[in-house]
Amino acid sequence: MDPSQVKIPPMKDLTVDNITENVIRINSLCDDPRMKYVLERLVTHLHDFARETRLSSQEWMTGLKFLTEVGQICTDVRQEYILLSDVLGLSILVDSIDHPKPSGSTEGTVLGPFHTHEAEELPAGGAMSKDPEGEPLLVVCTIRDTNGAPVEGVKIDIWETDSTGHYDVQHADREGPDGRCIMHSDKEGIFWFNAITPVPYPIPHDGPVGRLLKKLGRHPYRPSHMHFMFEKEGFDHLITALYLRNDPFETSDAVFGVKDSLVVDLGRAGPEYAAKYGVSEDHKLLTYDFVLVSDVETRELREKNSKAALDKLGRKVKIVNGLPIPELD
Amino acid sequence: MDPSQVKIPPMKDLTVDNITENVIRINSLCDDPRMKYVLERLVTHLHDFARETRLSSQEWMTGLKFLTEVGQICTDVRQEYILLSDVLGLSILVDSIDHPKPSGSTEGTVLGPFHTHEAEELPAGGAMSKDPEGEPLLVVCTIRDTNGAPVEGVKIDIWETDSTGHYDVQHADREGPDGRCIMHSDKEGIFWFNAITPVPYPIPHDGPVGRLLKKLGRHPYRPSHMHFMFEKEGFDHLITALYLRNDPFETSDAVFGVKDSLVVDLGRAGPEYAAKYGVSEDHKLLTYDFVLVSDVETRELREKNSKAALDKLGRKVKIVNGLPIPELD
Repeated sequence: MDPSQVKIPPMKDLTVDNITENVIRINSLCDDPRMKYVLERLVTHLHDFARETRLSSQEWMTGLKFLTEVGQICTDVRQEYILLSDVLGLSILVDSIDHPKPSGSTEGTVLGPFHTHEAEELPAGGAMSKDPEGEPLLVVCTIRDTNGAPVEGVKIDIWETDSTGHYDVQHADREGPDGRCIMHSDKEGIFWFNAITPVPYPIPHDGPVGRLLKKLGRHPYRPSHMHFMFEKEGFDHLITALYLRNDPFETSDAVFGVKDSLVVDLGRAGPEYAAKYGVSEDHKLLTYDFVLVSDVETRELREKNSKAALDKLGRKVKIVNGLPIPELD
Repeated sequence: MDPSQVKIPPMKDLTVDNITENVIRINSLCDDPRMKYVLERLVTHLHDFARETRLSSQEWMTGLKFLTEVGQICTDVRQEYILLSDVLGLSILVDSIDHPKPSGSTEGTVLGPFHTHEAEELPAGGAMSKDPEGEPLLVVCTIRDTNGAPVEGVKIDIWETDSTGHYDVQHADREGPDGRCIMHSDKEGIFWFNAITPVPYPIPHDGPVGRLLKKLGRHPYRPSHMHFMFEKEGFDHLITALYLRNDPFETSDAVFGVKDSLVVDLGRAGPEYAAKYGVSEDHKLLTYDFVLVSDVETRELREKNSKAALDKLGRKVKIVNGLPIPELD
């Protein structure tokens, strides 16, 4: 390149203490203000991390090798970086920031790596699992908005493991989708189906993330749960799951997905449900009332939370495209 | 696994604000106190980064995809994660923390990705470059300890690009090592050799790190320099480089390697050096007096700096195996 085109503000003599401001200075020509802000915070935290731990060259190299391995084990069907983000609690944090929920609405949780786009539409009352070993479970749910009105025509994506704790895609010999379906809520906001009782299972732990968990003295298990994803124009996309109370891993989920409001007790159908849904009275039953938040409410709450969090940090921000960037004086 | 073996302290209900303490809590069974401390700081900074930027799910996914690509482009001869660490200023910071230099000694700088282990021993006065297009440069250096005494028998590893700005390993058709050599200092601590005048060159920028630099409005160039690595038992391993003053990229090095004390002026041999080293009087000349620090001095200074930095942060630490871990109350 033509050196005369170097417009970067000159750096000062580099020391342990001023390297951070020098890197921020050299990045200051970035013409995307949001990216500039994200990089400024990234560099600041990365450097403070090294300064606070007095990170050794050997540890630095161990870290870079680990990150390289995490990248190299990724394939079209395995995303080890999402897994790393999950076990460090970053995934649930980002979801909570990006999809804030007003009081009374259904909270979101981690998507996990096993959602697919091949589930088939299931009519009301259909069976989503072909596993004969699973314990039958009747699931009856409603969907309402934050004013309590039923929401019709919501697309609901539902997925769970088989009775051995494996999703269909984890079986090399599978013949098609199983343990997953798409449903739509009816006029009364109701959707119902037949499933099997969820069981606990480990996240993939034969790679670098599994080795990290082992070194940290952690197990790779997730408590028993069923995944739900809700989509309807005008409503914030909701990715969530319901967790069974008293699961042995309820308070030590490897990916931090459990929230109190998402923990459910399974019951029995009893006479009313047995008659209405055609099961025996002692058939296992899961009921839940989901509450969706509108796009508008979500955007307002997200912006309000951003302002509050950054004011607390003493940072003046303005919201551009829904995201904070520093307010320049 | 047997769920009764779950000894992890139970998490509290997860929120944006308490996810960090919950992750630290779940990691608290790690039996390596240093790793536990490093992870505690890592998780804290990672989460604060997300909270301060209000990181969106889309940005999070962009970041994870970037990290995946950085890992996937790595090969035996390309380490894109080191490059990423270099352009974010982390490499020079870690080197400065791990190899602190008392006043008056030679500062270290980034190793870069082009050091090899195949350089051949060069006798005093030999030529390290076979490039006929390079501008000849006589290099005459001394090595002393911090008391001013010459240090004999230091192994010195030296490498530079050819006149086109490429290291030997970047030429697919190269026949053997070129532009690199091993020397040893003599009784008076002197080593001298014939080289070519260094030229600026870009770091590899055809991968994800190059794309990042472009988005940040940065160029990929490094100012003209020559690498030196010093090794002798009892002395701290010194990785450094000398930079030519007034290089167009002197104040905007893509990897933050330039320190004032390592910037040199090239001179001319003049009558004395011409007679002594067998070159013409107007032959270009580089002289430098390197000062090595003993292992003992380095360790003491590293520990002193660690204590000071962590006291300043209000953290009580003890030094174990040369590295700080929190002092438990």
